[in-house]
Amino acid sequence: MSKPFDQTDHAELKVLEQELSQQLRQYREAGLKLDLTRGKPGPEQLSLSDELDGILQGNYRDGSGTDLRNYGGLDGIPEAKALFAEMMGVDASEILVGGNSSLTLMYFAVLFALYQGVAGSDSAWIKQGDSVRFLAPVPGYDRHFSICQQLGIEMIPVDLGDAGPDMDEVEKLVARDPMIKGIWCVPRFSNPSGCVYSSATIKRLAQLPKIAGPHFRVFCDNAYAVHTLQADAPELDNVMASFKQAETADALYLFGSTSKITFAGAGVSFAAMTDNNLRSFKQQLLISQIGPDKINQLRHVRLLRDMAGIKRHMQGHAALLKPRFDIVLKHLSDGLGGLAIANWTEPKGGYFVSFDTRPGLAQKVVELAGSAGVVLTPAGATYPYGKDPRDSNIRLAPSFPSLEEIDKAMQVFVCCVKLATVQQLLA
Amino acid sequence: MSKPFDQTDHAELKVLEQELSQQLRQYREAGLKLDLTRGKPGPEQLSLSDELDGILQGNYRDGSGTDLRNYGGLDGIPEAKALFAEMMGVDASEILVGGNSSLTLMYFAVLFALYQGVAGSDSAWIKQGDSVRFLAPVPGYDRHFSICQQLGIEMIPVDLGDAGPDMDEVEKLVARDPMIKGIWCVPRFSNPSGCVYSSATIKRLAQLPKIAGPHFRVFCDNAYAVHTLQADAPELDNVMASFKQAETADALYLFGSTSKITFAGAGVSFAAMTDNNLRSFKQQLLISQIGPDKINQLRHVRLLRDMAGIKRHMQGHAALLKPRFDIVLKHLSDGLGGLAIANWTEPKGGYFVSFDTRPGLAQKVVELAGSAGVVLTPAGATYPYGKDPRDSNIRLAPSFPSLEEIDKAMQVFVCCVKLATVQQLLA
Repeated sequence: MSKPFDQTDHAELKVLEQELSQQLRQYREAGLKLDLTRGKPGPEQLSLSDELDGILQGNYRDGSGTDLRNYGGLDGIPEAKALFAEMMGVDASEILVGGNSSLTLMYFAVLFALYQGVAGSDSAWIKQGDSVRFLAPVPGYDRHFSICQQLGIEMIPVDLGDAGPDMDEVEKLVARDPMIKGIWCVPRFSNPSGCVYSSATIKRLAQLPKIAGPHFRVFCDNAYAVHTLQADAPELDNVMASFKQAETADALYLFGSTSKITFAGAGVSFAAMTDNNLRSFKQQLLISQIGPDKINQLRHVRLLRDMAGIKRHMQGHAALLKPRFDIVLKHLSDGLGGLAIANWTEPKGGYFVSFDTRPGLAQKVVELAGSAGVVLTPAGATYPYGKDPRDSNIRLAPSFPSLEEIDKAMQVFVCCVKLATVQQLLA
Repeated sequence: MSKPFDQTDHAELKVLEQELSQQLRQYREAGLKLDLTRGKPGPEQLSLSDELDGILQGNYRDGSGTDLRNYGGLDGIPEAKALFAEMMGVDASEILVGGNSSLTLMYFAVLFALYQGVAGSDSAWIKQGDSVRFLAPVPGYDRHFSICQQLGIEMIPVDLGDAGPDMDEVEKLVARDPMIKGIWCVPRFSNPSGCVYSSATIKRLAQLPKIAGPHFRVFCDNAYAVHTLQADAPELDNVMASFKQAETADALYLFGSTSKITFAGAGVSFAAMTDNNLRSFKQQLLISQIGPDKINQLRHVRLLRDMAGIKRHMQGHAALLKPRFDIVLKHLSDGLGGLAIANWTEPKGGYFVSFDTRPGLAQKVVELAGSAGVVLTPAGATYPYGKDPRDSNIRLAPSFPSLEEIDKAMQVFVCCVKLATVQQLLA
């Protein structure tokens, strides 16, 4: 049966509900324990970088002769700055290479802007009004939202489409509310939709600071900059160059890391920004740290070498990830295609498939799947405050489980989506 | 000539001034470039841990089988928790092992207490009055003071003696000012005096929260916990046990790191606190990071193994450091002994000698030494806001330079102290 559910009559739906419930009972009895929650690289992906430990062969000095074992070097080692600056499309003078977490760099960037100010203490967001607000393109990344929530920054959701955030809406909101001080962006292979911001979107983002005022910041988390799954994946414009052309480069913070290039928990992170911003950021950052683990940075340079090396390395990841995405998409297409009960993305890079049920069903689907041992990202997690107003979006993360596990988990998932939908239609 | 300067007559002082000025001129002409500023381990000390890179031999799993290459494990790996908990004298459940910087953990602990609260948002210090204050035992560590300064916490200096802070003064201040919310302590081999807090001091510190109220915190940076220079170095009481006995353990945050055990820039850090505190701290910390570099933690466990291993390792450091301290102390004693113009500490551990000129001379001495190519920690750096009210304290850090360099630098230093003093007496 593959006609749209809304063209299916009551009796047929009743039969279908019986069948699907029976199927789900079988899955439950199978005692599955499957996890599609977080965007964690799988063990084989991690093994692509196993050389890292020991790669220095006792040489702890960088090219300029600095002893990397000692304190110092807040902005990272020259070789790492050069490599990751190229990857982020900025000058080597415009990057800081840090520890194992770009999330920490983002946290500090928001924290400093909020309390210390992006241009002297008078510019501290907290001093400019009662409530600081951010735009949150949705669906988006829960850890971005958590930073705002902890720091008391109110989030205003705006829809994220295939070409990026709804820029009409973004411009309108920013124009009428001077307390909107930032926007979260994942410009290439967005988490979770996988969309790549179009040239037009990047150009309009670069114009945004002219509407929003001097202390507005675009927090551009380019976490999946080189994480393509197939050769025809769309490229991203050079974001920094676009902002420079618009003469708004001081409003841009770019972030990235090797968390999904080398070791998820032991990579290196980076923040790119204008010389102006970097000077002030480093001054603030130095209060909480003397410098990052420079040795691990050198390990990364030795392993990845140059942009060609990074691309080769990423092909290894794609070879492991692509089949996983293929299984997910095949199950969705085979199981749900033509039923007109769900939408999903078919990303050409990144770590996620973004899935939308009919309104009001995401939480139900996650519950049903959980009851059969398939753990999904909690419904709502892709929205500020964990609240999806349509209760519709589910993030599927197929990188970590094995092909067999994904196959099994997706059977259960498809069954749960259909069952929840049938039950809604019958209610 | 070795009689006290205040028993030396004007004419003799005049002659002495001539001689010392002549000597300083010669040092200047020698074109020296020596640095006694920061407490950085020397290259030979760092080499004691050169095995670290490569020590895992391809095994990236901890004892419980967790793949350390991946995300997760906010509080560190079990082996590292066990080892450093023993070192800090706490239960393994009471420690979080983090990245390469204990300064960052301290920064977060202050930040969270200030804005998020140590026991729910109502307890946020910022909500309890207009100005938050800390006690700052002096001389102390400039980076502790910088955290307070950036976060707008006012510091009140209290004198640090041979047995720790002046507890009469501490208790008096805390009793009359409920906005004093914290105190910085370096309880063993304090930076820079090298003093070890006595049992009596620790006991009174443990009683302090009863006077100061429920949201007061003792920030105990046990950075030199195992950093003895000689066998008869005084032990520190178990700080956590003392606070538990006083039933004030929730008021204690303990910090430490391997920065001066293994690699200064690539070690591991830890924070120890009660289960209560740790639960809330982790909840806050998780907003800015998924987890520390667990691989580097395993490297450290493989290298150091157990407390006996740490002790052996620290003997290697002592063998390199002791001769450096000996030269410093010999120059001070030979050059300044009996002149009654300066005081200095003779530490049995740690990284510094704390030196006091006659009031009003520290800055002058640092300038004179600088003019002859000997860079010293800026005068005042050991005081909040960089202001030593007596302009008297200078921190000498002999760990990094070679024996020859220290020998040369200390000749210059002694000459500058004498010259500055003579000039003051003649003025």
